[in-house]
Amino acid sequence: MANFDASETSRVEPKFGVLLFPGFELLDVFGPLQMFAHSNATSPVTLIAEHSGAVASAQGPEVIAQYSYGKCPPLQGLLVPGGIGTRQQVHNTRLLDFIAARAREVKVLASVCTGAALLAKAAALDGRRATTNKWSFGWVSQQGPSVDWVKHARWVEDGAVFTSSGVSAGMDMALAIIARLNGLEAAEIIAAHAEYDWHRDADWDPFAKAAGLVD
Amino acid sequence: MANFDASETSRVEPKFGVLLFPGFELLDVFGPLQMFAHSNATSPVTLIAEHSGAVASAQGPEVIAQYSYGKCPPLQGLLVPGGIGTRQQVHNTRLLDFIAARAREVKVLASVCTGAALLAKAAALDGRRATTNKWSFGWVSQQGPSVDWVKHARWVEDGAVFTSSGVSAGMDMALAIIARLNGLEAAEIIAAHAEYDWHRDADWDPFAKAAGLVD
Repeated sequence: MANFDASETSRVEPKFGVLLFPGFELLDVFGPLQMFAHSNATSPVTLIAEHSGAVASAQGPEVIAQYSYGKCPPLQGLLVPGGIGTRQQVHNTRLLDFIAARAREVKVLASVCTGAALLAKAAALDGRRATTNKWSFGWVSQQGPSVDWVKHARWVEDGAVFTSSGVSAGMDMALAIIARLNGLEAAEIIAAHAEYDWHRDADWDPFAKAAGLVD
Repeated sequence: MANFDASETSRVEPKFGVLLFPGFELLDVFGPLQMFAHSNATSPVTLIAEHSGAVASAQGPEVIAQYSYGKCPPLQGLLVPGGIGTRQQVHNTRLLDFIAARAREVKVLASVCTGAALLAKAAALDGRRATTNKWSFGWVSQQGPSVDWVKHARWVEDGAVFTSSGVSAGMDMALAIIARLNGLEAAEIIAAHAEYDWHRDADWDPFAKAAGLVD
């Protein structure tokens, strides 16, 4: 392990948290986390789950949650990923209660992909504009009848709540969150450092048409 | 955990492996893995490290390696990520020996970002064309004096060996690997499903100029 010591990071209070559950989508979590980790406004980032320890992703690999719901310190931001596991988690009242409680304290609440179904079921999107994965739009929008669902959007900002379209869109939204908290230039530098072609326009969304949601 | 059972995946022999080491870059691993996981040509994908169990990323979060070097079954492909940990790993003969041994058996050997430094030190790039992170180009290229380093490229293919530029470029390269093994249409479908704007052109690289490597 030599000079690399991750425990150094874990002694610092986290600013942003990312929620894990069995069957979460890998890129929904690690795309945004890659960006958040390099901004002072959002870092350190921690991983949270019902129980601390290993959580299996939809793609198989297991990732370690540092905090359980009960042990997680106050956060400035919470991001909820999607993935096939959301199909069970929309019925998990412990997870929905955690989201609802934290939604009241954070400066930024965000979802990627079908994670919007979990925000909707936690009533965190009621009366707000929101978007989600374009290939699962019908199922997700059924989870939130009081939400103004936007079919054509890479991501949607409504006050403190950011929701992105599917999987890869989380990276574009994460940079928009950094731009709001830390300025556009900070987001541009992080994107360039990651050699990432940031889609800066929240209305850029060729997948809404590909999925047959708009003409 | 209900209907989601990741252990189902682990009972199947992996086709592709991704190498972990302390201080690996998160998106270097999980960008390509997201794509690989959805192609029959590359999935199941497994994570490998010197010892099985938790490995800390450069950004803090820990990920579980399923196999140690000695226990890892034969693979059809091996991907090596970059990250700040490569600065130590270029001196780790056990890691370099593992890469060199697997380089002889796989159909596809790939690196993302500064992972090219590890392929170079394992002599897996000698006499080949290769690229790497544009902001760490000088250090990486010093690790492989017998390599034909390409300054302007999103990724480079030379026979069985694929090397990508920094961090985000791994996703574009992963889709190119899938296109070679499974056909262009398969790669296009995976990109669209992940709502990913695939840069199909290996020569697309605005970051080479941004980093002052080319005019």
